[in-house]
Amino acid sequence: MKTLIRNAAIVRAGGKTETGDVAIDGTLIAAVGKAPEGWQADSVIDATGKLAVPGLVNAHTHASMTLLRSYADDMNLMDWLQNKIWPIEAKMRKPDIYWGAMLAALEMIESGTTAFADMYGDMEKVAEVAIESGLRAVLSRGIIGVAPNGEAALEENKTLFRDYHGAADGRITVMFGPHAPYTCPPDFLRRVAEIARERKAEIHIHLAETKGEVENCLKDYGKTPIALMEETGILQCGVLGAHCVHLSDEDIALMKKYDVRVAHNPGSNMKLASGIAPVPKLQKAGVCVALGTDGASSNNNLDMLEEARLAALLHKVDTLDPLAVPAHEALQMATENGAKAIGLKNLGRLEPGQLADVVLYNMNGTAWTPKFDLVSLLIYAAGSATADTVIVNGKTLMEKGEVLTLDKERILFEAEKRAQDLAAKM
Amino acid sequence: MKTLIRNAAIVRAGGKTETGDVAIDGTLIAAVGKAPEGWQADSVIDATGKLAVPGLVNAHTHASMTLLRSYADDMNLMDWLQNKIWPIEAKMRKPDIYWGAMLAALEMIESGTTAFADMYGDMEKVAEVAIESGLRAVLSRGIIGVAPNGEAALEENKTLFRDYHGAADGRITVMFGPHAPYTCPPDFLRRVAEIARERKAEIHIHLAETKGEVENCLKDYGKTPIALMEETGILQCGVLGAHCVHLSDEDIALMKKYDVRVAHNPGSNMKLASGIAPVPKLQKAGVCVALGTDGASSNNNLDMLEEARLAALLHKVDTLDPLAVPAHEALQMATENGAKAIGLKNLGRLEPGQLADVVLYNMNGTAWTPKFDLVSLLIYAAGSATADTVIVNGKTLMEKGEVLTLDKERILFEAEKRAQDLAAKM
Repeated sequence: MKTLIRNAAIVRAGGKTETGDVAIDGTLIAAVGKAPEGWQADSVIDATGKLAVPGLVNAHTHASMTLLRSYADDMNLMDWLQNKIWPIEAKMRKPDIYWGAMLAALEMIESGTTAFADMYGDMEKVAEVAIESGLRAVLSRGIIGVAPNGEAALEENKTLFRDYHGAADGRITVMFGPHAPYTCPPDFLRRVAEIARERKAEIHIHLAETKGEVENCLKDYGKTPIALMEETGILQCGVLGAHCVHLSDEDIALMKKYDVRVAHNPGSNMKLASGIAPVPKLQKAGVCVALGTDGASSNNNLDMLEEARLAALLHKVDTLDPLAVPAHEALQMATENGAKAIGLKNLGRLEPGQLADVVLYNMNGTAWTPKFDLVSLLIYAAGSATADTVIVNGKTLMEKGEVLTLDKERILFEAEKRAQDLAAKM
Repeated sequence: MKTLIRNAAIVRAGGKTETGDVAIDGTLIAAVGKAPEGWQADSVIDATGKLAVPGLVNAHTHASMTLLRSYADDMNLMDWLQNKIWPIEAKMRKPDIYWGAMLAALEMIESGTTAFADMYGDMEKVAEVAIESGLRAVLSRGIIGVAPNGEAALEENKTLFRDYHGAADGRITVMFGPHAPYTCPPDFLRRVAEIARERKAEIHIHLAETKGEVENCLKDYGKTPIALMEETGILQCGVLGAHCVHLSDEDIALMKKYDVRVAHNPGSNMKLASGIAPVPKLQKAGVCVALGTDGASSNNNLDMLEEARLAALLHKVDTLDPLAVPAHEALQMATENGAKAIGLKNLGRLEPGQLADVVLYNMNGTAWTPKFDLVSLLIYAAGSATADTVIVNGKTLMEKGEVLTLDKERILFEAEKRAQDLAAKM
């Protein structure tokens, strides 16, 4: 299957844009700028007036939690977790996991996200959603080592890896998901690291999200969470670290040494009042910083353009430097860095040989006018509702704003019903 | 003209929602909950599945600057102003002012804003836009006292007040717009205050936006900008103060004493790295805090839902308190407080006797699912593109997402052309 995107404004490396074509052959981008001489496409997309951007990568989320959107907000963290989120999560069954992730998949495609790194339970249901929706997914079973089901969850992650790593034409990969240093004791983490290493699997883990977590870790182990992760062998596996808000200079040096990729979640960190991650400092140290939305219970959407905008705005005011995280860097965090963060090598740029994950934004709208700087418009002005066409692995998932792979009406119905049924049990 | 909005989810005071009707008679809300017995409407709007919210109030903007959207971003403030914004503004002529404000009006209506407080030059062109678009507007001529045209601008503001205060069935009111304490010397401000007082006019002014401004004011006058505004008699006129980022406790006490209403601009303050206004502290002191987008050159859109979301998120992370600025407070800032801030008494709530400025959001969408808390969904999850119907002063300006009062195609064309023509002159 060959697809030709014609006459798009194409975002290239460094945020420059140029008008041209994107030729897709199978799952890969064959050419950018001009299609090869005599190239015959099976399908042609007229992208006049549209901006072609690498698919946005949501590097940290809990897709099924979209079912809990607006269930509990504006609360203190432990009150929120202990009295609202954990009790209702305990009632969630496989169909809830499935329809929650379906709602998430619908929202991600509609807003221009083409790949997501997910951590939750019953992950084979999320794998089904990735397969059906056409999205690219990096799945990990969230493992709470101290929980009664800790061992069972670790086994589930092993099974998930065996059954789904490389599945769906390579669209699905699997990482191990020990939840966090404060929910998995060091010995447990050592075992996870060993199991991952045997499989050459990487690790997706929450790190240094709150100040209290770091303080407790120092008290209990005499080390920061990052240093403890080195000692347990986790860092050596290759790590996608979510949050990474409270870091020492030594932590940052360790992260650089082991090439930890950060999933920065500005919306969640702001809403839960976790703190502000030292993103410019991480970037300066050469650490790869990507973006994630976290779950929709703490965001409350999966809008990666909004996340990129928050990153661009938050670090300017935090460092009092209007040059911090300029628009093209924020876009890079949401695309190229995202791809690297979730462990995919040839993804995140519109270049020949890259996986064909492409989003077209319709620029024929009010917030896109006037058109001086298209990347600035995308990051600072446009709404994600202007996403028009979404292509993943060479396949069109959304066309003219309509998702082709999913039954939107049914998803909204099932998600609403199951969410209300769950809440009624509380 | 009587309009009946039927079966809406209605946001009431405190953020509670209830299903019912909103009856509009002429320019006012006649009833909320249930229409009066035997009430015959000329027009009925079926609002099933829609959320009825008081129209959003943009309490500080420079509408015509929308023409400069994406012209210059990610620069240091003085570099940006001196080398990009001021030179191109100097080339702007009345038609540019008009089409820039038209683009802004289109964007405001499309995103659910029903009233805006504007400060710029050639304000009779912005008045024309308010008249034609149907928006509610509070206009002030931006006056740079130290500029060669300072006196002329002051005269223009007097003329604007004479010609437009109370115009368009009361939709337009006029304030005086001395730009800022650092651009208007104390004696000039004293004269502005006197002229305003004679007319019972209020003042719209930038206050304490940057740290440097406050430091210079202390050095030059031995007083903070707020204290200087008391000495010059400005505060005594009734003040809509934009930004108010860098405030002492004494400043806040003065602001409370004179009932200064704050237009908080989180997006602009973040993007320009101005700092974080002490909003929870202002609220605790009883100061009215509203929200504004500032101009689209420093935001870069006029999306008031986004501004409310930024306010809710920013102050949580700034104070490390997840209870700061909860969703219903952010909405109140964007509606009721906005109305108070721009000097309108019976506006900002969906209650009988209030001016009939109403927005209906279409909740039949992905980010609105599931529906546990509608105000939380509006503030934390929904995109402004879900604004469906906009009513101002009892008149429908937008229906099913289509703006009825403006020629969208022509506005986008003229704005794009004029913006590019201006840039070509630079």
